[in-house]
Amino acid sequence: MNFAAELSRHVSRVETGLNLHLPAADTRPARLHAAMRYAVEGGGKRLRPVLTLAAAELFGVTDDAALPAAVAIECLHTYSLVHDDLPCMDDDDLRRGRATTHRAFDEATALLAGDALLTHAFALLATAYTDRPALAHALIAELAEAAGSRRLIGGQMEDLQAEQKSDATADELEFIHLNKTAAMIEAALVMGGLIGGANEDALGSLRLAGRDLGLTFQIVDDILDATADTATLGKTAGKDAKAGKTTYVKLHGLAAAREFAAAHTHRAVAALESLPGDTAFLVALTRELVARGK
Amino acid sequence: MNFAAELSRHVSRVETGLNLHLPAADTRPARLHAAMRYAVEGGGKRLRPVLTLAAAELFGVTDDAALPAAVAIECLHTYSLVHDDLPCMDDDDLRRGRATTHRAFDEATALLAGDALLTHAFALLATAYTDRPALAHALIAELAEAAGSRRLIGGQMEDLQAEQKSDATADELEFIHLNKTAAMIEAALVMGGLIGGANEDALGSLRLAGRDLGLTFQIVDDILDATADTATLGKTAGKDAKAGKTTYVKLHGLAAAREFAAAHTHRAVAALESLPGDTAFLVALTRELVARGK
Repeated sequence: MNFAAELSRHVSRVETGLNLHLPAADTRPARLHAAMRYAVEGGGKRLRPVLTLAAAELFGVTDDAALPAAVAIECLHTYSLVHDDLPCMDDDDLRRGRATTHRAFDEATALLAGDALLTHAFALLATAYTDRPALAHALIAELAEAAGSRRLIGGQMEDLQAEQKSDATADELEFIHLNKTAAMIEAALVMGGLIGGANEDALGSLRLAGRDLGLTFQIVDDILDATADTATLGKTAGKDAKAGKTTYVKLHGLAAAREFAAAHTHRAVAALESLPGDTAFLVALTRELVARGK
Repeated sequence: MNFAAELSRHVSRVETGLNLHLPAADTRPARLHAAMRYAVEGGGKRLRPVLTLAAAELFGVTDDAALPAAVAIECLHTYSLVHDDLPCMDDDDLRRGRATTHRAFDEATALLAGDALLTHAFALLATAYTDRPALAHALIAELAEAAGSRRLIGGQMEDLQAEQKSDATADELEFIHLNKTAAMIEAALVMGGLIGGANEDALGSLRLAGRDLGLTFQIVDDILDATADTATLGKTAGKDAKAGKTTYVKLHGLAAAREFAAAHTHRAVAALESLPGDTAFLVALTRELVARGK
């Protein structure tokens, strides 16, 4: 397996899917739809939708059946970034190397574009799987749970509260990482499995792999924020330290953070290798993620 | 039929349902869940969920089958108010006679509580109708369409743009009212019909009734903003005129606005009366709404 070629194949499908499954930029009201597309077209790694496509392929889904779900999960992820960047949240000017949506448009438009991307994720799952209502139902339940007040949004809330005090505990930090980051990565893999008709055991392994992959990803993000520069990151570097934010690096030190990342990677790989099908790509992707932080 | 008693019966069921189907205020993170409940427990007319319950009753649904859908539509409506009140939008301090959510908590918490209410609406529809996946699917598709970028959010976007210039056209004003207000009222009635197993003809009549009821409701709101005081409204009065906002009253004058409201009421009543079952309550509710603006 050529990892770079496989990754590029999946990313390219995601880009095509995003273009296909988002309303055209000139749909009325044009400013809103232009902002939605601006936010989504910012690029980024497309990690979550790639995971959905790759997980579905493990179960023999080689056609485009997983594409609407992959697009829905990227819309959901993008909304969370657009709202997270707003002045009342992280107040960030840069995202993926260019102006954040509220900087390129204005705050109100960014707020509404985020709301619209969140709503569109559910609309897409409801309309793309009309011939498989039980599947549509399972996908929507999975996404709504992962994105809800106990998980994604709950993680963002505790992250915000942790920034306001500068002494978050290890328990609070784990809650944030498990929910702000790992929830959507779990959902991305599980939704791929649901489309492929994975059984309960396989769905459980996908969920475990997503959990550990998500924790790895977040710890590596903390490491990069502490060690890389703005040009490399494509977003403002060192902002965690500047904000007095508790991170794995601040709480445990750089060496221990790297050890945590390695341990979670090991567990993610073990969960992936218990799955049927050719898991080489997903295993390589996991190893690639942890290598970024070395 | 005793209208006041019927209305009170429906509202009381909605309040019970909201309490039952929202996460407890002490669910982690507690501040987020407290803000969600604060926003929802502000009271208000509960117009949309009452319409859902009453529409379902037309088709013989007398048990609590429509309650989760009614709660979902009120969560959706409440999120739109919470975000609409934020400083970057209407920047309002009062809603239903008490502090808006961002005033009672803070902007970031209000933003996330709105996001969480929107997400919860879909989560609830996905989990409450697991034994009827085709129904769950239809309800989610209906709500996501009505709440999406072409309808509710699109209407809010054009409303915002209309405030920035002070010469919105009659066409722009109609787009705003049809989408910002009527979309969710249509969805409320249609979702009730879906739960009751209404046929295509009946769903069409519910949609028409919702459209005209929504337009009536918005015109009456414009009339009240121009004529009532803050204490009566429970929100800041005269803010449309102060913001230089185009309303039916500004565009056509008070007398013509009242005529429009009467014409739309007439059409809503005609559509309702074409439905099976006892439509007396829904007809009386429509007449009550237009009477507010007299």
